[in-house]
Amino acid sequence: MSRFWSPLVHRLTPYVPGEQPKITNIVKLNTNESPYGPSPMAIAAIREATDDTLRLYPDPESLALREAIAARHGLTARHVFVGNGSDEVLAHAFQALFSHGDPILFPDVTYSFYPVYCGLYGLPFQTVPLDASMRIRPEDYALPNSGIVIANPNAPTGIALSRGDIENLLASHPDRVVLIDEAYVDFGADSAIPLIERHPNLLVVQTLSKSRALAGLRVGFALGNPDLIEALVRVKDSFNSYPLDRLAQAGAQAAIEDEAWFRDSVAKVMATRASLSSALTKLGFEVLPSCANFVYVRHADRDAAMVAAALRERAIIVRHLKGPRTSSWLRVTIGTAPQCAALADALGTIVRRNTPPG
Amino acid sequence: MSRFWSPLVHRLTPYVPGEQPKITNIVKLNTNESPYGPSPMAIAAIREATDDTLRLYPDPESLALREAIAARHGLTARHVFVGNGSDEVLAHAFQALFSHGDPILFPDVTYSFYPVYCGLYGLPFQTVPLDASMRIRPEDYALPNSGIVIANPNAPTGIALSRGDIENLLASHPDRVVLIDEAYVDFGADSAIPLIERHPNLLVVQTLSKSRALAGLRVGFALGNPDLIEALVRVKDSFNSYPLDRLAQAGAQAAIEDEAWFRDSVAKVMATRASLSSALTKLGFEVLPSCANFVYVRHADRDAAMVAAALRERAIIVRHLKGPRTSSWLRVTIGTAPQCAALADALGTIVRRNTPPG
Repeated sequence: MSRFWSPLVHRLTPYVPGEQPKITNIVKLNTNESPYGPSPMAIAAIREATDDTLRLYPDPESLALREAIAARHGLTARHVFVGNGSDEVLAHAFQALFSHGDPILFPDVTYSFYPVYCGLYGLPFQTVPLDASMRIRPEDYALPNSGIVIANPNAPTGIALSRGDIENLLASHPDRVVLIDEAYVDFGADSAIPLIERHPNLLVVQTLSKSRALAGLRVGFALGNPDLIEALVRVKDSFNSYPLDRLAQAGAQAAIEDEAWFRDSVAKVMATRASLSSALTKLGFEVLPSCANFVYVRHADRDAAMVAAALRERAIIVRHLKGPRTSSWLRVTIGTAPQCAALADALGTIVRRNTPPG
Repeated sequence: MSRFWSPLVHRLTPYVPGEQPKITNIVKLNTNESPYGPSPMAIAAIREATDDTLRLYPDPESLALREAIAARHGLTARHVFVGNGSDEVLAHAFQALFSHGDPILFPDVTYSFYPVYCGLYGLPFQTVPLDASMRIRPEDYALPNSGIVIANPNAPTGIALSRGDIENLLASHPDRVVLIDEAYVDFGADSAIPLIERHPNLLVVQTLSKSRALAGLRVGFALGNPDLIEALVRVKDSFNSYPLDRLAQAGAQAAIEDEAWFRDSVAKVMATRASLSSALTKLGFEVLPSCANFVYVRHADRDAAMVAAALRERAIIVRHLKGPRTSSWLRVTIGTAPQCAALADALGTIVRRNTPPG
């Protein structure tokens, strides 16, 4: 507490990111990173851009990158906004599009940064409970709102809505922006991008941190009607003219253009997810049907915090989120096949060894 | 205009960065970049970090970089905040430290992003006129305020305040943060950093874009009492957990540690500034005494916009800022010695050829 702080700062409850351990001999399944390196074309493009031109500012409009993203999705650069990770893109979207008096709606169990943005910008919000099977029910969003935010697939559950469900939401709230956070969409869900043309109130946010394996480069983007993109640009140009450095622009563009690497990498993650889900089910875990690069699991009679701690003793880190609806669950990132086999082995030992109380 | 925009977005007047032309055969003296490439150690560090570890998130705390900056200035990592360019650092500082009811004070002629931040966060501000010789008069800041922002040396004038002047400001406003924006300090002004220990209300902001020649990497930092740094961290962690990517952290750390390159590069710029100032004075320009990597100049009887346009015809770009107090001036970045010689030659021709009207 300080007399120098703006009153806002006292009220903030910042987001707490997953642990980034500095030791390296660990099976790190806690922050949904790709177990595979990024496209070799991205690595090569970054190396090529690493020269004396770093003395010059980057393109403030990231035009080449935006054109590459647009081309891949059949849109124009005017439909594309890029930022320093999808977290920055989301922050700008909350500030630029969601202040209309009524609360913003999002699920009670979802990406925990959403309420933090509301705190930062003084925006009211209302959470809408997932149903008993941890699913989003679109019909529950028929409430007055300043905007709706849906992670699809949802995190940490991994469960996806259909494109039809998304379209119904868009059609039911034509005067409000519906933001679909597709951080994990490439691992098996249907993107809402084809709906952009028909729905001027749709903003789709994606990231290169997951399916493009570039969490370390910090690039995210939003796709939507140019009218929505312009709002984001106005906020960005009032905050930081150059959010993407020269290397991030070059690497991200090359990654977007390497479709073969992308398909192969995503397919491997999905195959490993299937085998891990099967192994965990056999061990007595409930495994939610995931369209993401993680699975959300709980054991009928083993305490999640205990299991997470026992895994950590074996140098395996997973994510345990506290809270009334999440404390019995573990979120496990899909690693390589050997990492997931090691996880299943360790869980087998832990589940057998720790008999339940009572 | 859109029904989807937050009311704020309609009101914003975004910052307009200097032109980043995509053609390359141009003498680019418009955005105060270094004419020399960055430290070879920075280039090497970035290349070394460009590998499969890009799949992993960066250190959200940028600890190694903060420790390197702290070590150079005799402080601890708790005194250091880093961000995605000093623009982002400034934005967070405005939001975190300057909302106390009274206006924020800054000069009428200074970095034009300051009023933009005020617009973004709904903060009142009051500009304090430079005197007739384009100098900041510290005694003019004895007004009720929520904080004071001084670029030192000031931009676009290049004129610096003494450390004693800064200390008087700090002592006169003990309950308000005085932010000293030292983007250009390394080119001949006295840094306020030694005052941090005695003055808990001092926040110093610097960038690697100018004296470290890394405008393309987007790294800036703030130094101050840990209490002020904590406010910035709370805002940052409510906005974007990982503002600095892995390559920016690695390159910036190496750049900070290469003291020899830094001293040599800055000395070259200062030597060229002296010879260019002398040449321009001989051509009839008034040249303000600059402690920055640019000079602010005007001609007794040549229109600044005309001169800028005539230079552009010769493939030389300088910055002409519109506005009642700046429209007769040109801001010229210090390039290499040959670039500055070419500029002086071109100006000689332009000044001789264009006789004044009347």
